[in-house]
Amino acid sequence: MRIIIDGMGGDNAPGEIVKGVVEALNIINDEIVIVGNESAIKAELKKCRGKYPKDRLGIKHASDVITNDDAPVRAIRAKKDSSMVIGITMVKNGEGDMFISAGNSGALMAGGLFILGRIQGIDRPAIASIYPILGRSYPSIIVDAGANAECKPNNLLEFGVMGSIYMEKVMGIKNPRVGLVNIGAEESKGSTLTKAAYDLISKSRVNFVGNVEAREVPAGACDVIICDGFVGNVILKLTEGLAWNILKLLKNKFTDGGVAKMGALLLSGKMRELKSEFDYSEYGGAPILGVKGSIVKMHGSSNANAVKNTILKAIPYVNNNVVQIIQNSVEELEEITISE
Amino acid sequence: MRIIIDGMGGDNAPGEIVKGVVEALNIINDEIVIVGNESAIKAELKKCRGKYPKDRLGIKHASDVITNDDAPVRAIRAKKDSSMVIGITMVKNGEGDMFISAGNSGALMAGGLFILGRIQGIDRPAIASIYPILGRSYPSIIVDAGANAECKPNNLLEFGVMGSIYMEKVMGIKNPRVGLVNIGAEESKGSTLTKAAYDLISKSRVNFVGNVEAREVPAGACDVIICDGFVGNVILKLTEGLAWNILKLLKNKFTDGGVAKMGALLLSGKMRELKSEFDYSEYGGAPILGVKGSIVKMHGSSNANAVKNTILKAIPYVNNNVVQIIQNSVEELEEITISE
Repeated sequence: MRIIIDGMGGDNAPGEIVKGVVEALNIINDEIVIVGNESAIKAELKKCRGKYPKDRLGIKHASDVITNDDAPVRAIRAKKDSSMVIGITMVKNGEGDMFISAGNSGALMAGGLFILGRIQGIDRPAIASIYPILGRSYPSIIVDAGANAECKPNNLLEFGVMGSIYMEKVMGIKNPRVGLVNIGAEESKGSTLTKAAYDLISKSRVNFVGNVEAREVPAGACDVIICDGFVGNVILKLTEGLAWNILKLLKNKFTDGGVAKMGALLLSGKMRELKSEFDYSEYGGAPILGVKGSIVKMHGSSNANAVKNTILKAIPYVNNNVVQIIQNSVEELEEITISE
Repeated sequence: MRIIIDGMGGDNAPGEIVKGVVEALNIINDEIVIVGNESAIKAELKKCRGKYPKDRLGIKHASDVITNDDAPVRAIRAKKDSSMVIGITMVKNGEGDMFISAGNSGALMAGGLFILGRIQGIDRPAIASIYPILGRSYPSIIVDAGANAECKPNNLLEFGVMGSIYMEKVMGIKNPRVGLVNIGAEESKGSTLTKAAYDLISKSRVNFVGNVEAREVPAGACDVIICDGFVGNVILKLTEGLAWNILKLLKNKFTDGGVAKMGALLLSGKMRELKSEFDYSEYGGAPILGVKGSIVKMHGSSNANAVKNTILKAIPYVNNNVVQIIQNSVEELEEITISE
């Protein structure tokens, strides 16, 4: 397999990207090509002192970069020499099996749509993000994580089917439980969108556990969390913000007063464990499901460890032909939506 | 002032309701009337052994109850002898200044709409719930907390104006910061709804701080959190579920291993403090803003302490004429929406 990675995307590019690639190369047997400014990438590689298999590492020069300030669609159309456009085009042309980037999410989605194209029969591709479940050995995924702020019922059905395939094939969870985020557990509850989506998803072959209230999401009530991109974004960001605030408050409380301070010292190992449960860099990236090729988004602030983990955990995405399996599921989707 | 309270609503009625009323009566100088099954309420009062001012406590018999399983609109129409319908009707007829209930939220909203009626010029009344901000002396409020799963831009404008008035007059926060929950900080970000609402709210006289990402909500980025009822419900319930899960995991981690156990003992006081920061029962109830009268919703699982606090904290809602001030603000709302 040849993995193409965006050397210029994210807050810590190219340094941490290059470091993460080198770490990954020492674990896997696949090839990696870093796309971006050749001299900058070479300078970073020098710091790694040759401790990597040179025959499996390539560099593809790209003279331009898409930044987070760029308007996604315009950037993909105008910046033909950007690392992102070149990288996705390499996947399109069969020069690589997967593209990974920590850059502009909207542009990555637009690049998937315009360069690779939608899988025929999928109305709206979606981003599937990891949602960590405290105290459980594997995370859930949330689809859509923010690509589609407004959705139709058939989109939520697509998210459920694609997410279920990804969870089974890539995360290794057999018959994953698919839940619809809603403001009540009963079938009759919710908005026009969720009521109609409930009806569609329950006709599909996914293991649908029905409506899931947001209260139940952190406890792992379902493995594939289905919602529109607005709600998905709110869930992900609120979780991040709240966890951070609780840990900060704990730290303040625990270092306030002599006895508590002593207690905190005794507990410091446990606190580190808790923090690592929230550490997104351990979990890998977020695939863009529904486009004709494998694209994986990394967190914008990814460090070398996150880069390495994203690469390692993305390999089954290609090896298990997830894109092809989604393509094969389209017929079922059409039967459900046409019969409506 | 005469406060009318639903003696039959919620998981712990009538026992905890009666106990909370007695506790409140010993602090305030106002009258309270409990509506519900007279003999059941009298039996609970007997347990309090007369330790309350009898001249300020009344009972109004109601032979029926609206349960959480009742369909809201139908229940309000059919159950004329329920404690909820009788209580709201007393406010309508001037026999009471405010109605408080821990019962069916949807029915309480429907009762407000059908018995008291909307304030003319307010398209959609909303529930304003407390949102605790860790480490800050006062909570934020979230409008709408779940009454309106689908909203139009002018509804979000109304929520901002009504929430701002409530925050200032009842919570005592001068010039409260009003924020719109969105999936990006920039004005151009979000759904059709939030983009249009941003435009409307920025034309109003509220202290609009613009879009607020869900990540910033727990840190107190704004005092009045504006969103549709679907998103509001997700924010409230996810916060509850996640906080609970983190505390549970902490407890498990801290009691796992001898040294950690000793540390946990030293910290137990601090853990209790953290738990109390999340304790909704300290914060009081949630008003239904936009109806012609004062109705306050308590958490369904309210205990005596929550009942007492809801009563105490609801008094400024009536004393400061919030309903009248919202009525007065309608003219401004109409100017903004008509000029669109």
